[in-house]
Formats: sequence, structure tokens, C-alpha cells
Amino acid sequence: MKTKPARIATIQPRLRIRVGDEVALGPGKAELLQWVKQTGSISEAARKMGMSYMRAWKLIQIMNQCFREPVVLTSRGGKDKGGAEITKLGRKSLKLYQKMENDSLRVCERSWQQLEQLLKL
Amino acid sequence: MKTKPARIATIQPRLRIRVGDEVALGPGKAELLQWVKQTGSISEAARKMGMSYMRAWKLIQIMNQCFREPVVLTSRGGKDKGGAEITKLGRKSLKLYQKMENDSLRVCERSWQQLEQLLKL
Repeated sequence: MKTKPARIATIQPRLRIRVGDEVALGPGKAELLQWVKQTGSISEAARKMGMSYMRAWKLIQIMNQCFREPVVLTSRGGKDKGGAEITKLGRKSLKLYQKMENDSLRVCERSWQQLEQLLKL
Repeated sequence: MKTKPARIATIQPRLRIRVGDEVALGPGKAELLQWVKQTGSISEAARKMGMSYMRAWKLIQIMNQCFREPVVLTSRGGKDKGGAEITKLGRKSLKLYQKMENDSLRVCERSWQQLEQLLKL
């Protein structure tokens, strides 16, 4: 006999930063940047996120065009389609983005506790 | 001769509240709730948001199922496909959601000013 699992309520603060018509940084691009930082490779980062290399590469191109300087530098060649390195500006941007996400979550805590009480769980 | 318009950078805090697999409340549903509150009509609210009546109705059904009590009550009939009324619980939920959005924006202000400096505008 199966028992009905309890429903879990979650809150996700998702910050979207736009420059003109482009999304310079959002949840997906920030995660991609984090994976490039960790793996030093666009293809590895793409694999971790279950997206194609081409898609990851395009997202990085958009980010690079939205910031004053590139957030990721790539070198061509090699079996990994070339290595990738997050720049100093990339690290700084990611850190600020993650700080804003964490700050948002923290500032919402009390209201979220109240709202959670109103949900059917 | 056309001059290139300056690019504007914006930050949008988007909160997504999940109950199990459903999104109980997010930017779209919160806006819909706000319009129902203002117009007292699902079809008017849908029109304001450029969505079909059916879509708006479905979103409201999802919200109603995610909360302990309905957030919107509808009455059938009439040329407006029946009136709609936001409930006390609906108002409270919307208020908490909007407070969290505003709090998020405020808490991000300083980091956002720093991040904005890194963007190509």
C-alpha cells in the first residue's frame, strides 16, 4: 500500500538582471558560471547542467557581451574543446549575485513562515 | 541619423513558491491575483495581462488547490462569465508575497549598485 507523500513547500528567490533586451545574469547563467569556475571547462559545466555545449557557449557569449569585460575566457583546441576560465570580473559578479540571492532568502524568512502557514501541505 | 539608445540595466527579484510539483505563487500568479483584486473579474484580469480567460482560470484553480482555502471565489453567469472575488486569505497571501518582493529589492540595493558598475551600458 502506497502512502501519500507529504507535500513540501519551498521558496526560491530568482534574480534576473537585464541589460537592454538581454538577460545578463539569472539563475541559469549564474549556475553555469559557478560550474565553469569549479570545472574550468564549458563542456563539463554544460554536462553538469544537462545542457548542450552549444547552449552553454551561447549563454556565456551573452554574459560576455553584457559585462564591461568578459566573465569567462576560453582557449581553443584540445579534446575538451578548449579550457575555460572565469575572470576576476566574473568571480566578482557571481559573488555579488549569490550574495543578493542569499540576502533575499534571509530577508524573506519571516514573511515566508507566515505564508507557509496558509498553504495546503 | 539615429542615435543608439543607452542600455538600461534592471534587476527583478522573482519569487517562486512551490507546493510539491506546483507553483503556488510566482510573479505571474501574483500579478493575476492583483488584477482580480482590482477588477473583480477573471476575464478583465486576463485581458489586462494579455492572456486567455481559460489560462487565467487555470492559474486560479492551481492557486486555489495549493492554499488551505481558495484565494479567489467565482460566481457563474452574467456577461462577464461571472464575477470573481479575492478572499481574505488571497489578500493576505498577496500582501505577504508583495512584501517579500519589496524586501528583496531593498536588501539587494547595495550589491546591485556594485554589480551595475560591472555591466556594459
